Amino acid sequence: MEIISAIAVLRETLQGRQPVAFVPTMGNLHEGHLALVEQARQHGRCVVVSIFVNPLQFGAGEDLEKYPRTLEADCRKLQAAGADIVFTPSAHELFPTPQQFQVEPPSIASELCGAVRPGHFHGVATIVLKLFNIVQPACGVFGKKDYQQLHIIRGMVREFDLPIQIFAGETIRAEDGLALSSRNGYLSQEERAEAPRLYRALLQIREALASGQIDFAALETAARNDLARHGWQVDYISLRNANTLQAAQPGDAARVVLGAARLGTTRLIDNLEF
Amino acid sequence: MEIISAIAVLRETLQGRQPVAFVPTMGNLHEGHLALVEQARQHGRCVVVSIFVNPLQFGAGEDLEKYPRTLEADCRKLQAAGADIVFTPSAHELFPTPQQFQVEPPSIASELCGAVRPGHFHGVATIVLKLFNIVQPACGVFGKKDYQQLHIIRGMVREFDLPIQIFAGETIRAEDGLALSSRNGYLSQEERAEAPRLYRALLQIREALASGQIDFAALETAARNDLARHGWQVDYISLRNANTLQAAQPGDAARVVLGAARLGTTRLIDNLEF
Repeated sequence: MEIISAIAVLRETLQGRQPVAFVPTMGNLHEGHLALVEQARQHGRCVVVSIFVNPLQFGAGEDLEKYPRTLEADCRKLQAAGADIVFTPSAHELFPTPQQFQVEPPSIASELCGAVRPGHFHGVATIVLKLFNIVQPACGVFGKKDYQQLHIIRGMVREFDLPIQIFAGETIRAEDGLALSSRNGYLSQEERAEAPRLYRALLQIREALASGQIDFAALETAARNDLARHGWQVDYISLRNANTLQAAQPGDAARVVLGAARLGTTRLIDNLEF
Repeated sequence: MEIISAIAVLRETLQGRQPVAFVPTMGNLHEGHLALVEQARQHGRCVVVSIFVNPLQFGAGEDLEKYPRTLEADCRKLQAAGADIVFTPSAHELFPTPQQFQVEPPSIASELCGAVRPGHFHGVATIVLKLFNIVQPACGVFGKKDYQQLHIIRGMVREFDLPIQIFAGETIRAEDGLALSSRNGYLSQEERAEAPRLYRALLQIREALASGQIDFAALETAARNDLARHGWQVDYISLRNANTLQAAQPGDAARVVLGAARLGTTRLIDNLEF
């Protein structure tokens, strides 16, 4: 496995190694990331994983500075998982001058997580476009845990005519249901015990719908209130059309319920398709 | 020479024909375009010319509807000029659904032509990014006549890390100095006789600077007034740093003076580097 930090060296190294399967990450890798690498191995002759904590997608006062950086451990895990190349650019390598060109995603990027984190998905889309142009993969693999991100990346690829196939990886969960996330490491022992309630709230909404309840707003409100009673600050609990991410309507072919809420200073997100 | 209108057919056809040199156009081709094709032949094994009147870059009330479409004559000229493939997508082929993702260029895109045509360079950058992703050329050739466009495309390629080299083609002029442009066809005989005054105004600024004048604003104002006296409606005459397109400063290594003005309903642009 090669560890490369220069764009020019990466491009040189990738000559003749198509098709490339690409997994962009911010590092601090857990089983969820490694499952994406495993998935990528099925689609590419050469698996490239990028590790870059992207400043464009962090807002003022967010956790850019304290975001966990664990490059050595990450590389050990990636080697074991069968990655071929780890791309670890510096901020200066990706932004030799301040990034002025941005990807402007549609208005869905200002809802859900985008409402709480203004500009977040502009930053995500911009860095992913840059990385796609650097790596030039045949496919990219993204986790469903970041469901809105996946939706936006798929839209960008389609509307910008990028010749890249996007694969989605299932969310990997701890035994108690908590979706794996680098930010779980911020949780105190007490918060960690409480954290699976977010997933349980989503499961309850799915069950309520399966049993015939149809008042979407009431289900969302009940879940918010339950979380709030247990000390969460809820950003949103929202039932959406899984294909468009627009508000759920009667007769949607596929739905997803998405949630984001904070325990103390830690913001957790999760979702459930059905 | 092949004429292709489907993205999938173009991609298939381009397999194994790298390096591709690409000249995007809006058709109604003149000697300026054909010089770009000639230049492209020096850089690529396969020269692709696109013809697409891009609705994204036209504002309300602009000349999208009446913009000249002369596909048959264009193809004859391109064949003679040695193009290998003409890509002529329909609007539906490029926008099967409304384009929601856009390229957001930096603030320079809202100056000069962008001040008069809001959103114009968003539309230009977005379509060029899409075409780049479809054609995947090793290089693209753009005319200096659209100087601000060239500047913005260069910036986009750099900041989005596109693996594409950008070459600039010199402006081709009629004998009386008028820069060739598809919009020259809108001019009445009388307007056509008047039209070279725009270029002469730029030449006069260059001469004045060469002879030691240093009051940039006074030179710009004098040129505007002269054009206005002869019936022009002037959008701008502006002296800029040729590398940054910021307002000219004493000591700039390279400068360009850019002008845009309307004769009747026809808007002409031109520029001069020095």
